Amino acid sequence: MKLYDSKLAPNPRRVRIFLAEKGIDVPTVQVDIAKAENRGAEFLAKNPLGGVPILELDDGTVIAESVAICRYFEETNPRPPLLGTDAKDRALVEMWQRRMEFEIALPIMQVFRNTHDFFKGRIPQVPEYGEVCRKAAESRMKWLDAELAGRSFVAGDRYTIADITLLVGIDFGRVSNLRIAPDLANLQRWYGEVSSRPSAKA
Amino acid sequence: MKLYDSKLAPNPRRVRIFLAEKGIDVPTVQVDIAKAENRGAEFLAKNPLGGVPILELDDGTVIAESVAICRYFEETNPRPPLLGTDAKDRALVEMWQRRMEFEIALPIMQVFRNTHDFFKGRIPQVPEYGEVCRKAAESRMKWLDAELAGRSFVAGDRYTIADITLLVGIDFGRVSNLRIAPDLANLQRWYGEVSSRPSAKA
Repeated sequence: MKLYDSKLAPNPRRVRIFLAEKGIDVPTVQVDIAKAENRGAEFLAKNPLGGVPILELDDGTVIAESVAICRYFEETNPRPPLLGTDAKDRALVEMWQRRMEFEIALPIMQVFRNTHDFFKGRIPQVPEYGEVCRKAAESRMKWLDAELAGRSFVAGDRYTIADITLLVGIDFGRVSNLRIAPDLANLQRWYGEVSSRPSAKA
Repeated sequence: MKLYDSKLAPNPRRVRIFLAEKGIDVPTVQVDIAKAENRGAEFLAKNPLGGVPILELDDGTVIAESVAICRYFEETNPRPPLLGTDAKDRALVEMWQRRMEFEIALPIMQVFRNTHDFFKGRIPQVPEYGEVCRKAAESRMKWLDAELAGRSFVAGDRYTIADITLLVGIDFGRVSNLRIAPDLANLQRWYGEVSSRPSAKA
Protein backbone atom coordinates (compact mmCIF):
# COMPACT_ATOMS: atom_id res chain seq x y z
CA MET A 1 0.00 0.00 0.00
CA LYS A 2 0.97 3.64 -0.46
CA LEU A 3 -0.03 6.77 1.43
CA TYR A 4 -0.13 9.96 -0.63
CA ASP A 5 0.86 12.55 1.87
CA SER A 6 1.61 16.26 1.96
CA LYS A 7 3.63 17.98 4.66
CA LEU A 8 1.97 21.34 3.85
CA ALA A 9 -1.67 20.43 4.40
CA PRO A 10 -3.35 19.78 7.75
CA ASN A 11 -5.42 16.69 6.89
CA PRO A 12 -2.54 14.36 6.04
CA ARG A 13 -1.05 15.09 9.45
CA ARG A 14 -4.15 13.57 11.04
CA VAL A 15 -3.30 10.26 9.38
CA ARG A 16 0.41 10.52 10.17
CA ILE A 17 -0.31 11.05 13.88
CA PHE A 18 -2.83 8.20 13.86
CA LEU A 19 -0.24 5.86 12.31
CA ALA A 20 2.43 7.01 14.77
CA GLU A 21 0.11 6.26 17.72
CA LYS A 22 -0.54 2.79 16.26
CA GLY A 23 3.14 2.22 15.48
CA ILE A 24 2.38 1.50 11.81
CA ASP A 25 4.85 2.28 9.02
CA VAL A 26 3.37 2.91 5.59
CA PRO A 27 5.31 3.71 2.41
CA THR A 28 4.62 7.33 1.58
CA VAL A 29 4.58 9.48 -1.56
CA GLN A 30 4.83 13.27 -1.10
CA VAL A 31 2.34 15.27 -3.16
CA ASP A 32 3.45 18.86 -3.77
CA ILE A 33 0.26 20.85 -3.30
CA ALA A 34 2.08 24.21 -3.61
CA LYS A 35 2.83 23.12 -7.20
CA ALA A 36 -0.79 21.85 -7.52
CA GLU A 37 0.36 18.27 -8.11
CA ASN A 38 -2.93 17.21 -6.52
CA ARG A 39 -4.75 18.97 -9.37
CA GLY A 40 -2.79 17.11 -12.06
CA ALA A 41 -4.28 14.31 -14.18
CA GLU A 42 -2.31 11.55 -12.48
CA PHE A 43 -3.54 12.41 -9.00
CA LEU A 44 -7.09 13.23 -10.09
CA ALA A 45 -7.33 9.74 -11.61
CA LYS A 46 -6.90 8.46 -8.04
CA ASN A 47 -9.00 11.10 -6.28
CA PRO A 48 -11.18 13.22 -8.58
CA LEU A 49 -11.74 15.70 -5.76
CA GLY A 50 -8.01 16.37 -5.50
CA GLY A 51 -7.78 16.08 -1.73
CA VAL A 52 -4.84 14.69 0.21
CA PRO A 53 -4.21 12.31 1.87
CA ILE A 54 -5.26 9.20 0.00
CA LEU A 55 -4.36 5.60 0.71
CA GLU A 56 -3.85 3.28 -2.24
CA LEU A 57 -4.20 -0.40 -1.42
CA ASP A 58 -2.31 -3.14 -3.25
CA ASP A 59 -5.44 -4.08 -5.21
CA GLY A 60 -5.65 -0.52 -6.54
CA THR A 61 -8.49 0.60 -4.28
CA VAL A 62 -8.12 4.25 -3.29
CA ILE A 63 -9.40 5.43 0.08
CA ALA A 64 -9.75 9.20 0.41
CA GLU A 65 -10.72 11.22 3.50
CA SER A 66 -8.44 11.17 6.54
CA VAL A 67 -11.00 9.70 8.89
CA ALA A 68 -11.84 6.91 6.42
CA ILE A 69 -8.13 6.08 6.12
CA CYS A 70 -7.87 6.02 9.92
CA ARG A 71 -10.87 3.69 10.08
CA TYR A 72 -9.13 1.30 7.70
CA PHE A 73 -6.09 1.14 9.96
CA GLU A 74 -8.24 0.82 13.09
CA GLU A 75 -9.93 -2.22 11.55
CA THR A 76 -6.69 -3.85 10.42
CA ASN A 77 -4.60 -2.81 13.47
CA PRO A 78 -7.00 -2.54 16.39
CA ARG A 79 -4.37 -1.89 19.12
CA PRO A 80 -4.29 0.63 20.67
CA PRO A 81 -7.92 1.54 19.98
CA LEU A 82 -8.23 5.13 18.76
CA LEU A 83 -11.86 4.93 17.61
CA GLY A 84 -13.43 3.49 20.76
CA THR A 85 -13.66 0.18 22.55
CA ASP A 86 -17.32 -0.93 22.49
CA ALA A 87 -20.66 0.20 20.99
CA LYS A 88 -21.19 3.06 23.40
CA ASP A 89 -17.58 4.19 23.45
CA ARG A 90 -17.31 4.05 19.64
CA ALA A 91 -20.37 6.25 19.38
CA LEU A 92 -18.99 8.72 21.91
CA VAL A 93 -15.59 8.85 20.20
CA GLU A 94 -17.35 9.48 16.90
CA MET A 95 -19.43 12.21 18.52
CA TRP A 96 -16.32 13.94 19.85
CA GLN A 97 -14.39 13.44 16.63
CA ARG A 98 -17.23 15.13 14.76
CA ARG A 99 -17.60 17.91 17.30
CA MET A 100 -13.89 18.68 17.08
CA GLU A 101 -14.08 18.59 13.30
CA PHE A 102 -17.26 20.59 12.73
CA GLU A 103 -17.06 22.99 15.65
CA ILE A 104 -13.35 23.77 15.76
CA ALA A 105 -11.14 22.34 13.00
CA LEU A 106 -13.48 23.17 10.12
CA PRO A 107 -14.08 26.80 11.16
CA ILE A 108 -10.30 27.18 11.57
CA MET A 109 -9.75 25.84 8.04
CA GLN A 110 -12.47 28.19 6.77
CA VAL A 111 -10.66 31.18 8.29
CA PHE A 112 -7.62 30.15 6.26
CA ARG A 113 -9.54 29.40 3.06
CA ASN A 114 -11.48 32.65 3.14
CA THR A 115 -8.82 35.08 4.32
CA HIS A 116 -5.35 33.76 3.41
CA ASP A 117 -3.34 34.73 0.34
CA PHE A 118 -2.62 31.06 -0.42
CA PHE A 119 -6.18 30.67 -1.70
CA LYS A 120 -6.41 34.05 -3.48
CA GLY A 121 -7.42 33.29 -7.06
CA ARG A 122 -7.72 29.57 -6.32
CA ILE A 123 -11.17 29.62 -4.75
CA PRO A 124 -13.85 32.32 -4.31
CA GLN A 125 -12.93 33.81 -0.94
CA VAL A 126 -15.44 35.52 1.35
CA PRO A 127 -13.38 37.25 4.07
CA GLU A 128 -16.53 38.22 6.00
CA TYR A 129 -17.37 34.52 6.35
CA GLY A 130 -13.80 33.87 7.47
CA GLU A 131 -14.34 36.32 10.32
CA VAL A 132 -17.61 34.62 11.31
CA CYS A 133 -15.68 31.35 11.47
CA ARG A 134 -12.89 32.91 13.54
CA LYS A 135 -15.42 33.99 16.18
CA ALA A 136 -17.12 30.59 16.04
CA ALA A 137 -13.85 28.74 16.60
CA GLU A 138 -12.94 31.03 19.52
CA SER A 139 -16.33 30.55 21.11
CA ARG A 140 -16.19 26.76 20.74
CA MET A 141 -12.73 26.67 22.30
CA LYS A 142 -14.22 28.39 25.33
CA TRP A 143 -16.97 25.77 25.54
CA LEU A 144 -14.42 22.98 25.14
CA ASP A 145 -12.25 24.42 27.88
CA ALA A 146 -15.11 23.92 30.34
CA GLU A 147 -15.70 20.38 29.04
CA LEU A 148 -12.04 19.49 29.60
CA ALA A 149 -12.15 20.50 33.28
CA GLY A 150 -13.11 16.99 34.29
CA ARG A 151 -11.05 14.78 32.03
CA SER A 152 -7.67 14.23 30.40
CA PHE A 153 -8.67 13.87 26.76
CA VAL A 154 -11.40 15.12 24.47
CA ALA A 155 -13.47 11.93 24.48
CA GLY A 156 -12.71 10.83 28.06
CA ASP A 157 -9.72 9.31 29.84
CA ARG A 158 -8.19 7.78 26.76
CA TYR A 159 -6.40 9.42 23.84
CA THR A 160 -8.48 9.05 20.65
CA ILE A 161 -8.89 10.35 17.12
CA ALA A 162 -10.84 13.28 18.59
CA ASP A 163 -7.60 14.55 20.15
CA ILE A 164 -5.84 14.21 16.82
CA THR A 165 -8.50 16.21 14.97
CA LEU A 166 -8.39 18.96 17.58
CA LEU A 167 -4.59 19.13 17.74
CA VAL A 168 -4.21 19.38 13.97
CA GLY A 169 -7.00 21.95 13.78
CA ILE A 170 -5.52 24.14 16.50
CA ASP A 171 -1.97 23.94 15.14
CA PHE A 172 -3.29 24.93 11.73
CA GLY A 173 -4.88 28.01 13.30
CA ARG A 174 -1.41 29.56 13.69
CA VAL A 175 -1.19 30.53 10.01
CA SER A 176 -4.34 32.58 10.57
CA ASN A 177 -3.10 33.96 13.90
CA LEU A 178 -5.76 31.98 15.74
CA ARG A 179 -4.56 30.50 19.01
CA ILE A 180 -5.88 29.10 22.30
CA ALA A 181 -6.64 32.09 24.54
CA PRO A 182 -4.22 32.19 27.53
CA ASP A 183 -7.06 32.04 30.06
CA LEU A 184 -8.39 28.71 28.75
CA ALA A 185 -6.38 26.76 31.30
CA ASN A 186 -7.89 23.32 30.67
CA LEU A 187 -7.46 23.55 26.94
CA GLN A 188 -3.91 24.84 27.43
CA ARG A 189 -3.14 21.91 29.72
CA TRP A 190 -4.62 19.48 27.19
CA TYR A 191 -2.63 21.09 24.39
CA GLY A 192 0.63 20.85 26.32
CA GLU A 193 0.10 17.17 27.04
CA VAL A 194 -1.06 16.11 23.60
CA SER A 195 1.63 18.15 21.82
CA SER A 196 4.36 16.50 23.83
CA ARG A 197 3.44 12.98 22.71
CA PRO A 198 5.99 11.67 20.19
CA SER A 199 3.18 11.26 17.62
CA ALA A 200 2.64 15.05 17.51
CA LYS A 201 5.89 15.38 15.54
CA ALA A 202 4.46 13.26 12.72
CA MET B 1 -33.43 4.75 25.53
CA LYS B 2 -34.92 7.91 24.05
CA LEU B 3 -34.31 9.67 20.74
CA TYR B 4 -34.75 13.44 20.81
CA ASP B 5 -36.01 14.15 17.35
CA SER B 6 -37.26 17.11 15.34
CA LYS B 7 -39.39 16.83 12.22
CA LEU B 8 -38.28 20.30 11.08
CA ALA B 9 -34.51 19.77 10.93
CA PRO B 10 -32.62 17.69 8.37
CA ASN B 11 -30.16 15.86 10.64
CA PRO B 12 -32.72 13.94 12.72
CA ARG B 13 -34.16 12.53 9.49
CA ARG B 14 -30.80 10.85 8.83
CA VAL B 15 -31.24 8.85 12.02
CA ARG B 16 -34.93 8.12 11.36
CA ILE B 17 -34.13 6.71 7.91
CA PHE B 18 -31.23 4.70 9.34
CA LEU B 19 -33.52 3.19 11.99
CA ALA B 20 -36.23 2.47 9.40
CA GLU B 21 -33.71 0.60 7.22
CA LYS B 22 -32.64 -1.44 10.27
CA GLY B 23 -36.21 -2.00 11.39
CA ILE B 24 -35.52 -0.58 14.84
CA ASP B 25 -38.18 1.20 16.89
CA VAL B 26 -36.95 3.76 19.40
CA PRO B 27 -39.13 5.85 21.76
CA THR B 28 -38.99 9.39 20.52
CA VAL B 29 -39.39 12.86 22.02
CA GLN B 30 -40.15 15.74 19.65
CA VAL B 31 -38.05 18.88 20.24
CA ASP B 32 -39.69 22.05 18.91
CA ILE B 33 -36.80 23.91 17.32
CA ALA B 34 -39.09 26.63 15.89
CA LYS B 35 -39.83 27.50 19.52
CA ALA B 36 -36.08 27.11 20.32
CA GLU B 37 -36.74 24.29 22.77
CA ASN B 38 -33.26 23.02 21.85
CA ARG B 39 -31.84 26.26 23.27
CA GLY B 40 -33.61 25.83 26.60
CA ALA B 41 -31.82 24.83 29.79
CA GLU B 42 -33.32 21.34 29.91
CA PHE B 43 -32.08 20.41 26.46
CA LEU B 44 -28.73 22.17 26.82
CA ALA B 45 -28.06 20.09 29.91
CA LYS B 46 -28.15 17.07 27.60
CA ASN B 47 -26.37 18.65 24.62
CA PRO B 48 -24.61 21.94 25.36
CA LEU B 49 -24.30 22.61 21.62
CA GLY B 50 -28.08 22.52 21.21
CA GLY B 51 -28.12 20.24 18.18
CA VAL B 52 -30.74 17.62 17.39
CA PRO B 53 -30.95 14.68 17.28
CA ILE B 54 -29.54 13.21 20.46
CA LEU B 55 -29.88 9.69 21.80
CA GLU B 56 -30.20 9.24 25.54
CA LEU B 57 -29.27 5.78 26.78
CA ASP B 58 -30.84 4.18 29.84
CA ASP B 59 -27.69 4.86 31.89
CA GLY B 60 -28.06 8.59 31.12
CA THR B 61 -25.29 8.74 28.50
CA VAL B 62 -26.15 11.23 25.75
CA ILE B 63 -24.91 10.60 22.21
CA ALA B 64 -25.10 13.63 19.92
CA GLU B 65 -24.28 13.82 16.19
CA SER B 66 -26.42 11.85 13.74
CA VAL B 67 -23.56 9.73 12.42
CA ALA B 68 -22.44 8.83 15.95
CA ILE B 69 -26.00 7.76 16.79
CA CYS B 70 -26.09 5.67 13.62
CA ARG B 71 -22.80 4.06 14.59
CA TYR B 72 -24.26 3.07 17.95
CA PHE B 73 -27.15 1.31 16.25
CA GLU B 74 -24.86 -0.30 13.66
CA GLU B 75 -22.83 -1.80 16.52
CA THR B 76 -25.84 -3.02 18.48
CA ASN B 77 -27.93 -4.06 15.43
CA PRO B 78 -25.47 -5.04 12.70
CA ARG B 79 -28.07 -6.31 10.16
CA PRO B 80 -28.43 -5.03 7.50
CA PRO B 81 -25.00 -3.39 7.48
CA LEU B 82 -25.25 0.29 6.60
CA LEU B 83 -21.68 1.26 7.52
CA GLY B 84 -19.81 -1.39 5.55
CA THR B 85 -19.02 -5.08 5.78
CA ASP B 86 -15.25 -5.45 6.27
CA ALA B 87 -12.17 -3.23 6.80
CA LYS B 88 -11.95 -2.03 3.21
CA ASP B 89 -15.68 -1.63 2.74
CA ARG B 90 -16.08 0.22 6.03
CA ALA B 91 -13.38 2.65 4.97
CA LEU B 92 -15.00 3.17 1.57
CA VAL B 93 -18.45 3.71 3.10
CA GLU B 94 -16.93 6.22 5.49
CA MET B 95 -15.21 7.95 2.58
CA TRP B 96 -18.47 8.24 0.67
CA GLN B 97 -20.43 9.27 3.74
CA ARG B 98 -17.95 12.06 4.31
CA ARG B 99 -17.88 13.09 0.66
CA MET B 100 -21.67 13.32 0.63
CA GLU B 101 -21.61 15.28 3.84
CA PHE B 102 -18.77 17.72 3.15
CA GLU B 103 -19.19 18.14 -0.59
CA ILE B 104 -22.98 18.21 -0.93
CA ALA B 105 -25.07 18.15 2.24
CA LEU B 106 -22.98 20.70 4.14
CA PRO B 107 -22.87 23.28 1.31
CA ILE B 108 -26.65 22.85 0.92
CA MET B 109 -27.14 23.50 4.64
CA GLN B 110 -24.84 26.53 4.37
CA VAL B 111 -26.99 27.98 1.59
CA PHE B 112 -29.93 27.75 3.97
CA ARG B 113 -28.07 29.09 7.00
CA ASN B 114 -26.61 32.05 5.14
CA THR B 115 -29.54 33.08 2.96
CA HIS B 116 -32.81 31.96 4.57
CA ASP B 117 -35.08 34.10 6.75
CA PHE B 118 -35.27 31.34 9.36
CA PHE B 119 -31.75 32.20 10.51
CA LYS B 120 -32.07 35.99 10.21
CA GLY B 121 -31.13 37.40 13.61
CA ARG B 122 -30.27 33.93 14.94
CA ILE B 123 -26.80 33.65 13.42
CA PRO B 124 -24.51 36.05 11.53
CA GLN B 125 -25.51 35.39 7.91
CA VAL B 126 -23.17 35.96 4.96
CA PRO B 127 -25.34 35.68 1.82
CA GLU B 128 -22.30 35.90 -0.45
CA TYR B 129 -20.92 32.75 1.17
CA GLY B 130 -24.31 31.11 0.71
CA GLU B 131 -24.00 31.71 -3.02
CA VAL B 132 -20.48 30.24 -3.08
CA CYS B 133 -21.93 27.15 -1.41
CA ARG B 134 -24.81 26.97 -3.88
CA LYS B 135 -22.37 26.83 -6.79
CA ALA B 136 -20.20 24.31 -4.95
CA ALA B 137 -23.17 22.00 -4.31
CA GLU B 138 -24.26 22.23 -7.95
CA SER B 139 -20.78 21.48 -9.20
CA ARG B 140 -20.39 18.49 -6.87
CA MET B 141 -23.74 17.09 -7.99
CA LYS B 142 -22.38 17.13 -11.54
CA TRP B 143 -19.29 15.21 -10.44
CA LEU B 144 -21.43 12.74 -8.52
CA ASP B 145 -23.67 12.18 -11.53
CA ALA B 146 -20.66 10.86 -13.46
CA GLU B 147 -19.63 8.67 -10.51
CA LEU B 148 -23.09 7.11 -10.36
CA ALA B 149 -22.99 6.02 -14.02
CA GLY B 150 -21.48 2.69 -13.07
CA ARG B 151 -23.30 1.75 -9.89
CA SER B 152 -26.63 1.68 -8.06
CA PHE B 153 -25.73 3.43 -4.83
CA VAL B 154 -23.31 6.08 -3.66
CA ALA B 155 -20.80 3.70 -2.07
CA GLY B 156 -21.26 0.78 -4.47
CA ASP B 157 -23.92 -1.85 -5.08
CA ARG B 158 -25.34 -1.71 -1.59
CA TYR B 159 -27.47 0.95 0.11
CA THR B 160 -25.50 2.62 2.90
CA ILE B 161 -25.40 5.63 5.19
CA ALA B 162 -23.84 7.58 2.31
CA ASP B 163 -27.17 7.35 0.45
CA ILE B 164 -28.99 8.58 3.53
CA THR B 165 -26.72 11.61 3.93
CA LEU B 166 -27.12 12.51 0.27
CA LEU B 167 -30.89 12.04 0.21
CA VAL B 168 -31.45 14.18 3.27
CA GLY B 169 -29.07 16.83 1.95
CA ILE B 170 -30.74 17.01 -1.45
CA ASP B 171 -34.26 17.06 -0.03
CA PHE B 172 -33.24 19.88 2.28
CA GLY B 173 -32.07 21.86 -0.77
CA ARG B 174 -35.69 22.46 -1.76
CA VAL B 175 -36.22 25.17 0.86
CA SER B 176 -33.36 27.04 -0.83
CA ASN B 177 -34.64 26.26 -4.33
CA LEU B 178 -31.66 24.02 -4.95
CA ARG B 179 -32.50 20.86 -6.90
CA ILE B 180 -30.86 18.14 -9.00
CA ALA B 181 -30.45 19.57 -12.51
CA PRO B 182 -32.73 17.72 -14.98
CA ASP B 183 -29.80 16.65 -17.18
CA LEU B 184 -28.06 14.76 -14.35
CA ALA B 185 -29.65 11.48 -15.41
CA ASN B 186 -27.71 9.15 -13.11
CA LEU B 187 -28.32 11.27 -10.05
CA GLN B 188 -31.99 11.58 -11.00
CA ARG B 189 -32.24 7.80 -11.35
CA TRP B 190 -30.52 7.32 -7.99
CA TYR B 191 -32.83 9.88 -6.40
CA GLY B 192 -35.94 8.18 -7.78
CA GLU B 193 -34.87 4.80 -6.45
CA VAL B 194 -33.70 5.89 -3.03
CA SER B 195 -36.74 8.16 -2.49
CA SER B 196 -39.12 5.33 -3.20
CA ARG B 197 -37.74 3.10 -0.43
CA PRO B 198 -40.19 2.99 2.51
CA SER B 199 -37.45 4.40 4.79
CA ALA B 200 -37.48 7.70 2.86
CA LYS B 201 -40.81 8.55 4.50
CA ALA B 202 -39.21 8.47 7.93
